Amino acid sequence: MRLKGRLRARRERGPKIKDVPIGLSATGTRTESDSLGTIDVPAGHYWGAQTQRSLIHFDIGDDRMPKAVYHAYGYIKKAAAVVNGREGRLPAWKAELIARVADEVIGGRLDSEFPLYVWQTGSGTQSNMNVNEVISNRAIQLTGGRLGSKDPVHPNDHVNMGQSSNDTFVTAMHIAAVTALHDRLFPALSRLRDAAAHKSEEWAHVVKVGRTHLEDATPLTVGQEWSGYVAQIDDAAEHLKATAAGLDRLAIGGTAVGTGLNAPPGFGDAVAAEIARLTGHPFTSAPNKFAAQASCDPLVRVSAALRTLAVSLFKFANDMRWLGSGPRTGLHELDLPSNEPGSSIMPGKVNPTQAEAMLMVAVQVVGNDAAVSMAGAEGNFELNAFRPIIIDNVLHSIRLLSDMMDHFRGFLVEGVRLNTLKLKSDVERSVMMVTALSPVIGYDEAARIAHRAIDEDLTLKDAAIRSGVSEELFDRVVDPERLTRPGVAR
Amino acid sequence: MRLKGRLRARRERGPKIKDVPIGLSATGTRTESDSLGTIDVPAGHYWGAQTQRSLIHFDIGDDRMPKAVYHAYGYIKKAAAVVNGREGRLPAWKAELIARVADEVIGGRLDSEFPLYVWQTGSGTQSNMNVNEVISNRAIQLTGGRLGSKDPVHPNDHVNMGQSSNDTFVTAMHIAAVTALHDRLFPALSRLRDAAAHKSEEWAHVVKVGRTHLEDATPLTVGQEWSGYVAQIDDAAEHLKATAAGLDRLAIGGTAVGTGLNAPPGFGDAVAAEIARLTGHPFTSAPNKFAAQASCDPLVRVSAALRTLAVSLFKFANDMRWLGSGPRTGLHELDLPSNEPGSSIMPGKVNPTQAEAMLMVAVQVVGNDAAVSMAGAEGNFELNAFRPIIIDNVLHSIRLLSDMMDHFRGFLVEGVRLNTLKLKSDVERSVMMVTALSPVIGYDEAARIAHRAIDEDLTLKDAAIRSGVSEELFDRVVDPERLTRPGVAR
Amino acid sequence: MRLKGRLRARRERGPKIKDVPIGLSATGTRTESDSLGTIDVPAGHYWGAQTQRSLIHFDIGDDRMPKAVYHAYGYIKKAAAVVNGREGRLPAWKAELIARVADEVIGGRLDSEFPLYVWQTGSGTQSNMNVNEVISNRAIQLTGGRLGSKDPVHPNDHVNMGQSSNDTFVTAMHIAAVTALHDRLFPALSRLRDAAAHKSEEWAHVVKVGRTHLEDATPLTVGQEWSGYVAQIDDAAEHLKATAAGLDRLAIGGTAVGTGLNAPPGFGDAVAAEIARLTGHPFTSAPNKFAAQASCDPLVRVSAALRTLAVSLFKFANDMRWLGSGPRTGLHELDLPSNEPGSSIMPGKVNPTQAEAMLMVAVQVVGNDAAVSMAGAEGNFELNAFRPIIIDNVLHSIRLLSDMMDHFRGFLVEGVRLNTLKLKSDVERSVMMVTALSPVIGYDEAARIAHRAIDEDLTLKDAAIRSGVSEELFDRVVDPERLTRPGVAR
Amino acid sequence: MRLKGRLRARRERGPKIKDVPIGLSATGTRTESDSLGTIDVPAGHYWGAQTQRSLIHFDIGDDRMPKAVYHAYGYIKKAAAVVNGREGRLPAWKAELIARVADEVIGGRLDSEFPLYVWQTGSGTQSNMNVNEVISNRAIQLTGGRLGSKDPVHPNDHVNMGQSSNDTFVTAMHIAAVTALHDRLFPALSRLRDAAAHKSEEWAHVVKVGRTHLEDATPLTVGQEWSGYVAQIDDAAEHLKATAAGLDRLAIGGTAVGTGLNAPPGFGDAVAAEIARLTGHPFTSAPNKFAAQASCDPLVRVSAALRTLAVSLFKFANDMRWLGSGPRTGLHELDLPSNEPGSSIMPGKVNPTQAEAMLMVAVQVVGNDAAVSMAGAEGNFELNAFRPIIIDNVLHSIRLLSDMMDHFRGFLVEGVRLNTLKLKSDVERSVMMVTALSPVIGYDEAARIAHRAIDEDLTLKDAAIRSGVSEELFDRVVDPERLTRPGVAR
Repeated sequence: MRLKGRLRARRERGPKIKDVPIGLSATGTRTESDSLGTIDVPAGHYWGAQTQRSLIHFDIGDDRMPKAVYHAYGYIKKAAAVVNGREGRLPAWKAELIARVADEVIGGRLDSEFPLYVWQTGSGTQSNMNVNEVISNRAIQLTGGRLGSKDPVHPNDHVNMGQSSNDTFVTAMHIAAVTALHDRLFPALSRLRDAAAHKSEEWAHVVKVGRTHLEDATPLTVGQEWSGYVAQIDDAAEHLKATAAGLDRLAIGGTAVGTGLNAPPGFGDAVAAEIARLTGHPFTSAPNKFAAQASCDPLVRVSAALRTLAVSLFKFANDMRWLGSGPRTGLHELDLPSNEPGSSIMPGKVNPTQAEAMLMVAVQVVGNDAAVSMAGAEGNFELNAFRPIIIDNVLHSIRLLSDMMDHFRGFLVEGVRLNTLKLKSDVERSVMMVTALSPVIGYDEAARIAHRAIDEDLTLKDAAIRSGVSEELFDRVVDPERLTRPGVAR
Repeated sequence: MRLKGRLRARRERGPKIKDVPIGLSATGTRTESDSLGTIDVPAGHYWGAQTQRSLIHFDIGDDRMPKAVYHAYGYIKKAAAVVNGREGRLPAWKAELIARVADEVIGGRLDSEFPLYVWQTGSGTQSNMNVNEVISNRAIQLTGGRLGSKDPVHPNDHVNMGQSSNDTFVTAMHIAAVTALHDRLFPALSRLRDAAAHKSEEWAHVVKVGRTHLEDATPLTVGQEWSGYVAQIDDAAEHLKATAAGLDRLAIGGTAVGTGLNAPPGFGDAVAAEIARLTGHPFTSAPNKFAAQASCDPLVRVSAALRTLAVSLFKFANDMRWLGSGPRTGLHELDLPSNEPGSSIMPGKVNPTQAEAMLMVAVQVVGNDAAVSMAGAEGNFELNAFRPIIIDNVLHSIRLLSDMMDHFRGFLVEGVRLNTLKLKSDVERSVMMVTALSPVIGYDEAARIAHRAIDEDLTLKDAAIRSGVSEELFDRVVDPERLTRPGVAR
Repeated sequence: MRLKGRLRARRERGPKIKDVPIGLSATGTRTESDSLGTIDVPAGHYWGAQTQRSLIHFDIGDDRMPKAVYHAYGYIKKAAAVVNGREGRLPAWKAELIARVADEVIGGRLDSEFPLYVWQTGSGTQSNMNVNEVISNRAIQLTGGRLGSKDPVHPNDHVNMGQSSNDTFVTAMHIAAVTALHDRLFPALSRLRDAAAHKSEEWAHVVKVGRTHLEDATPLTVGQEWSGYVAQIDDAAEHLKATAAGLDRLAIGGTAVGTGLNAPPGFGDAVAAEIARLTGHPFTSAPNKFAAQASCDPLVRVSAALRTLAVSLFKFANDMRWLGSGPRTGLHELDLPSNEPGSSIMPGKVNPTQAEAMLMVAVQVVGNDAAVSMAGAEGNFELNAFRPIIIDNVLHSIRLLSDMMDHFRGFLVEGVRLNTLKLKSDVERSVMMVTALSPVIGYDEAARIAHRAIDEDLTLKDAAIRSGVSEELFDRVVDPERLTRPGVAR
Repeated sequence: MRLKGRLRARRERGPKIKDVPIGLSATGTRTESDSLGTIDVPAGHYWGAQTQRSLIHFDIGDDRMPKAVYHAYGYIKKAAAVVNGREGRLPAWKAELIARVADEVIGGRLDSEFPLYVWQTGSGTQSNMNVNEVISNRAIQLTGGRLGSKDPVHPNDHVNMGQSSNDTFVTAMHIAAVTALHDRLFPALSRLRDAAAHKSEEWAHVVKVGRTHLEDATPLTVGQEWSGYVAQIDDAAEHLKATAAGLDRLAIGGTAVGTGLNAPPGFGDAVAAEIARLTGHPFTSAPNKFAAQASCDPLVRVSAALRTLAVSLFKFANDMRWLGSGPRTGLHELDLPSNEPGSSIMPGKVNPTQAEAMLMVAVQVVGNDAAVSMAGAEGNFELNAFRPIIIDNVLHSIRLLSDMMDHFRGFLVEGVRLNTLKLKSDVERSVMMVTALSPVIGYDEAARIAHRAIDEDLTLKDAAIRSGVSEELFDRVVDPERLTRPGVAR
């Protein structure tokens, strides 16, 4: 389009926009059309022919495309309309109208109009067309037009202007994942980290027997043990954030195969900048659109980082339930909160249910990631056609981890108490503090003492003294509390 | 309980059972109690204290325990009541009342009363208690009693009589999986198999160029190629059915840890027999309850068998999309049905969307199975506490495969057409029929002819004749149609 | 070939076969050739041009094609020669010569001649050609011919007669896996099963506190607990054997794409029967060669069954290390054998190392299976070209599980001892036997007693009596030993 | 040890160090001892009692602990000796002696002395002790002492001074992985990237038909397509490098449970600094030793990053084999190098074997990563006891990817040629350039033209003109070459 034409277009007078609330009162069906012909759609919904065809051909299972993808699409459609309007490819009134409806999409107010399944075309085209059709018909409603007429707002020519599903769907995937990470996961992660750090400080000076290979080992403080959970979470968070930064680069502007055909020069940059402005997140246009559309590598990496977080949380939750095991025949170093009765048959039983739920969530994230990884490998030529399964699993993992971390924190970590009696008694009975004698009397002699203590059921001190260690030496060297701070000069 | 007491109990006169329809008109909350104390529950629902506690502590993600688990539980509660009533541990009227409400559970009429999440206690106790509480309160309603009073039908003492979550939940998992397999998956599998077999017969005599390593190979018929899909499906079905037979053995009767404490002798056998009678499926009591409760091995095996089916279907669907690729620059041996427009930007594009959906479903099943496998390994001592994630993923896989096979069949396999022109032209241009010359002129000479054809862009015949093969020999040996039936005497 | 010609061929007089021992004394290189031209190979080895090309192009990592695949190939080459000789397609002397060398292959005497890597062509062609070339040259040596001359035994025309890599390699995979399963895995599995069963019987009457959710539960005997391991192993073995039966059907006879081109009618059946005769295993020709060559489904299923066995063993080994944890601060129900010192720094430490090794082996099998599953899905058209990775991982899993089960049995299970003092003390301190009171006094009252015992640190009996239960009732109902046999009349 | 004592120790006169070459000429066995007693070891080897016990108890499969782990241990033992010597805990002569032998370890000269299996204790203690014992005995040899006497260099008291397996083994894992990444993987990755970039530039202006969903799409240049591969590799490399930086933090200094018991203050920092100096890589001491020893999270993350690289390479290799498919019935845009004959039965066949090997390697890396992930989750309390399987799989993945990238580059990418005739003909026959008309005539009209072209087997131009588009408009808008550069003003 030449410059003059564009200026003219921009100033075009549009129809009056009515202030009609969302909703269609019609019943029965109306006829919509696409390039394959006409089809009846429910008159009470905004969607058009392609959405309807997808509903018919893909009602598989119960998994719907996550609403977060549509909210993300709202930003794209709005940003594209703004840019197209600004540059005169759309009349100002039409751009504004699309943007207005896109705001309704962003706000979740049209969620009921996005019924499609995860199991659909691998590019996500049907969900893109769903958005295009709904925005078109809602815009038509606001102008008083006839639904399905595609006039004055056409789903392809106007709402989808300068775009393809191939660039927009993966763009929406990135926006949805980034939003979920920043709105849900990172805050929950931070809260869990702080709760664990609080415990680490609270119990900084309580000595316990360490365990390696599940077997008694040298002592450490409970606070030191918890500092390990904190450090694992910190590292996982740092890695996840760095990895998630790869999602900031959007495919928008690549259109069908990455060349940007039918998008004007600079369109990707401009739309990405607009999305950044709208969302407050530093999105930019991906430097190479061919990779951005032919692969989902950035999301495969994020999925892997989520999995590693799950791996860290698995260890944390597993420790919790073991340390809380008992009450009479387990380790029972911790008293876990009694949130609910534990058994339908065993009265009075309390179980580590939050830990179990966390373990299951972690395992699900591992499974989700296996699906993402395999799907991520299966791109061909200019498109990875396994996108819906990738975003569904990534958002599922984010959601589960976010919610679970909050529950695990609120209903387990914050309420957990130390069984100090058990900790103290364990320390007194422990044998592995013999390690501290090793540099003084040698590993071989120390080993003999340890075996003697175990075989003859003696305390370590008794075994040591009977083996010729002086009580003075023993008491000086084998001080459990000091053994947890060996750096401190003796 | 002594025999006389049991006879007396059986004949006890119960209250009048009213014919109250399902539903509670009360609003606000009512107070329910369990061993941890009292708690408010929504007055419009039947569930009790433990369900409510679970709702509070485990509202994680959107994944709810599948309704199929509750329907299966309906059978268990009914069968247990029947057996308990028959043997006089429950008065006849109470057993009948529990059975009547259990029928409502089985029929899905109380589905709205089972709101719990997948992410809960790893034993499934909360879902068992949910069922116990709902049946208790619904039974109380039918007797005109006070909800939450546990009188005259107590959730633990009566509905759960002789049972534990530890034996019933895994029993419900088996029943739910068996039902889903027999009601949904096996029929869909059979329909897909027949549709593919139909194509195999229809195209039994159409010759095409085979491909190995994606490279041109010797010819076969399209029917032969499709017979391979049929055989893969047949084998997968046979294996899956044999594996699923392992689910027929139910843990019921093991109660808390497998010993059957609090269940009378023979209880497991009797309840399993009753479940078999009710469902028409040959369920029996597992010979070793310790294994049946401490592991979920039978379901891990079923998950693996579902995954292998997915692996077979991946290949089928992948072949379909490649054979349908084009129309101008792909293999284009098949014309796939045009179910919907393929692109928001490229007009007229048609894509192999059913195949893509099948590929994604297969990948999801692989991911689900990864979760099931890891969860299956994590049993400890007398319980595997990863049950909810196992049944959720197994049922998810069954559902997806079932629905997807029907769609793939109906919207792709049944409508696919052969592009006979392309097949014919490919056969004419193919070089690898040189293989038939190999036994006559030797591998080395045959290889020289093949290379010559490719390097000089000749037909195979031209290359052969120029290399000294007589036309008569060539025509006699290199007959594509006959090469697909080498067993037939020449 | 006409009948008369075949009769003549069969009676053809061959060269004198010399009794030359295996080995080539030549040094430097000799020239070999294939359809791409000539190439130098080490003069001290029997392999030819195609093996050499593969060595050059695929020296990737350290993973060599397992020797078991070549031994299996020995059977195929021998059986094919026998059949080809019997039916006159090969002169009797040539068939016998090939069979003789094939015996050397079977016996592992030519192992050093099979140097190729796992990472090669996906069909295994290079390993098939390696076998063909080695047999050709070794046969030539025995006839006094010139190595590399392909005369009088040609690698393709004679050793590979009636065969393709596409049917033989997957046939060799089946034979190798079946052999490894029957020779190694099933016997080791059976030995482990028996050792566990022995412990189950030995400890049939030792009572212990059960654990669910890692928390104290109702009692059972140690023998009952171990019967669960036995049952898990039995079920895994039964499933694995049933699944492995799918390997009995061999692709042999399908040649290049499954049609059997260049193989005479009945060739597959005859060769399979011969292989069955040679190996003593009931191999048959697969009913559908297209599926047999285009997929590796039977091996994918076996890999999954191996994984489920690994899942069962993971639980067994995990229980062992937890039950052996301590000695002072763990569960310490079991004394594990002290096979080696446990720590380089902590004198006297003993760790559950066999259990750890088993856990790692199980995890590796899970990983191997993930690779097999993905590879199994990736067949295209007439060939699955991911065969080397499939057989390598399946054989790796079989080997690891076999060896590990023997070590776990010999160095842990057989030597494990009960810590009866701990078991007894745990039973005395346990609270969950309150469950037995529940049918008498009701779940709610029983729960109150249990909570009281825990909160006030009482024995269950004290708490019960203080709560109004008579001592007589308590002693009658709460008898730990009898609680493990509730079916026995009281 | 007090300062004065340390000064004295440092100056202690040691025995004369002889210049004995590596090797033991003794035959038969000698007796070695550890805390469990004495045991015979082969007299021809340096290893001691604990190595021998491990060999007996863990000869499982064929997987040996990678030599790279021992080379890494060489650095640790040397660095520890240097620090211990510098600070007077070891006499200078003893520190120097240990360092000298450690150099032999680093250089691989003692590789034959490290025979242990991957499947051993989960902490790696046996491999640490193997190193300690070998260094001890080799040092004893150099001083003319008696092997097995532990005098004057004791494996625990001197070689392992200030260390535990729990901190050193994971330290060695990090060093080994970092070394393999920097020495092998990153250079190979860079070479492959450059080779692909070269092709991208070489073919920057060759137009081809793009494919999405495997179906014909709008055009792009071959160079653009290859720029996608380059961008994927670049991003994978950047991510892998950033992730690998997490390995720079070493557990050294934490000793048994992370507290650093028996290591002097600052020991971890000092040893890490010395390792950094020796290796030239910026290693430091991990800020939290509890996390560093209780988890293997940094390696789990690296494994995931390797997997994502594998995912990217899978797509690259998969495209290569499909684009090279044919020659007569495939896509055949590329001529792949003919490195070896492709079939034992089909003469003249050439297959995409390097691509297949790459696909298999990628799948193996996915499987390896599944094992690493599960193993990474299984830490308990102060130790992750799945370390050997983690490092074995990570090093396996690094090795495979490194070697494979070099082969894929050298034997495929660098030699691949364009089939320009096919590319040109495809562009001429393609229909999807209709997309360029869409902004001018609208999506709906453009779709009609596309369907017409396909249904009536017309060229796009013919279909357009017959549908009323002027030839002038068509030629102006539908210029394949310009369509690949839509940003360029028309």
